[in-house]
Parts: sequence; structure tokens; C-alpha cells
Amino acid sequence: MTIRRAEASDAAGIAAIIVPTIREGATYALDPDMSEAEALAYWMGADKETFVAEEDGAIVGTYYLRPNQAGGGRHVCNCGYMTRASATGRGIARQMCEHSMEHARAQGYRAMQFNFVVSTNERAVRLWQSLGFTIVGRLPLAFRHPSAGYVDAFVMYRHL
Amino acid sequence: MTIRRAEASDAAGIAAIIVPTIREGATYALDPDMSEAEALAYWMGADKETFVAEEDGAIVGTYYLRPNQAGGGRHVCNCGYMTRASATGRGIARQMCEHSMEHARAQGYRAMQFNFVVSTNERAVRLWQSLGFTIVGRLPLAFRHPSAGYVDAFVMYRHL
Repeated sequence: MTIRRAEASDAAGIAAIIVPTIREGATYALDPDMSEAEALAYWMGADKETFVAEEDGAIVGTYYLRPNQAGGGRHVCNCGYMTRASATGRGIARQMCEHSMEHARAQGYRAMQFNFVVSTNERAVRLWQSLGFTIVGRLPLAFRHPSAGYVDAFVMYRHL
Repeated sequence: MTIRRAEASDAAGIAAIIVPTIREGATYALDPDMSEAEALAYWMGADKETFVAEEDGAIVGTYYLRPNQAGGGRHVCNCGYMTRASATGRGIARQMCEHSMEHARAQGYRAMQFNFVVSTNERAVRLWQSLGFTIVGRLPLAFRHPSAGYVDAFVMYRHL
């Protein structure tokens, strides 16, 4: 598997991953009804650096990295990761996160923050914890899960 | 003092409050060098509802309200408040916050979240606590203060 910067020609492969995840509405606080064009504009926006994980010529995962805040907060970055549904459980998200931390350090970021990890996404919470992230905040009932109802979300953070 | 929705003709009065605060760079994680037009585009953006506090025909404070997240997170709102430097200490921020909570409830929001309260802004922290907000997260060294260096920031939250 190789991880490289996304190019405009990757849009269809990225959309095939992010649109179903957004439609499901269970892990990201994004409008489930946004169009494919809006989803790509969000994920590949000018405020972000976007990467893809590629295997045998197919895109199996994608992530973005951006400053989490501007001004006095711009030394902390934020990332989002999504893996192709058919490729979960194989460590792709872990490899993308490790790649993103290395890239962030090289860019001079001093910390990485996840603003909104849905508490029911237990596999993600455990994965980020195993990669050195700590739950630094709990947002009570801040996410309306499509089947579980109102659940907490976590703020997770680590120095780089 | 009356609090009302901002109109386009309020731009100069709003800029006179927000631009010095942004330039100072001590309380908001915004680019201190942004132009006045960029500052107004941020504060009065289409994603926000913007209000002004007016006294004897002069704008003495302003705040915005917006959904803090989209999709499953859109029942939680976020606000930012700024008071004219010459009018601090008179309860204007308190009145704006009370107004914003009432407005948020009327709009159907269930909670309000402040994503990034700089820890050195002790007056603000105490004010939000007195209005029912709790520190639900601490972001270690997430803000580079222009004189104090790297300091923590708080995530504050309350149900409505």
C-alpha cells in the first residue's frame, strides 16, 4: 500500500469512499444529504491537504490534514480519515494516521486534535488511543446517531 | 441597551469592535493579520446569525450564532462574542450570552459549545461558568498567546 497526495483525477475513487460514509451519518458530523460535489469540495477543499491510500491501483482509504484553528491556534492540526468499507480491519486507518502524524511533524505542527469522535465509534476511539491520542474532552449528547439517538462525542488530542 | 440582528449597515460599527480584538490575537484563534473585509466576512458570514448590542445609537457589542457541526451535530450551536474595548466590565457580554441562549432555544438548539476559550482569558472563563457553562475539555498548549507563549484552551459546554 502506498500513501500519496490526492490529485484531481482521484475524485471518483475518493467519492466512492466518502459519500457512503457521509450518507450513513453515523461517524461524521456532516450533512448526510450533501451532494457528491459538496462532499468532494469539503474533503478536497483548498483549506486541506488530501491524501489517498492506494493498493494495486485502487484507492482504499483517504485522509485530509488542515490547521484546526487559525492565528494562535494554527500549530495544531486536524485530520479526518475514511477507509473503503470493503477494506476495513486491515490497518489502513492506522497507517494513514501514522503517515499524517509524520507529515504534520514535517510541516511544523506541534499537536493533532480530533474535534468530534462519536463515542459509539468504539473501534476508532481504541485505534486513536493506541496511537497515542487521549480523550481530553467529552461533549455530552452532542451527536444524534441515526440509530442510537443522542450520544456523546469525544475531543481527542496528542502532541507530535 | 438593545440587542438586535445585525444589518449590512452595521458593518463599520462591527468592524470597529472585532478588528482590534483580532489584531491583538490574545483571545480568538483567528489570523491577526486578516483584512477588515475578511474579518467582516467571517463574523457576518452566511453560515452565521449575527447580532449587535446597541446603546444610544452606538454598537457596543456583537455576537454570532451558528450550528457548531452539521449532520448529527447540528443541534449544538456555537457563539462568539466581542465587546467594545471602551465598554467592557458593564455586563454587555453577559447580556449578549443570555440573549444568545434564549435565541438558540427558540431555534431548537439543545446545547451550546465554545470550542476554544483561551485559558488566560480568565474573565471570560468565569463569566461563562457563571452562566452555566462547564469546562468539558482542556486542549494542552493549543494556543500561542502573543505574550504568554503556549497556553491551554478550554472547550466549554452547556445544555439549553
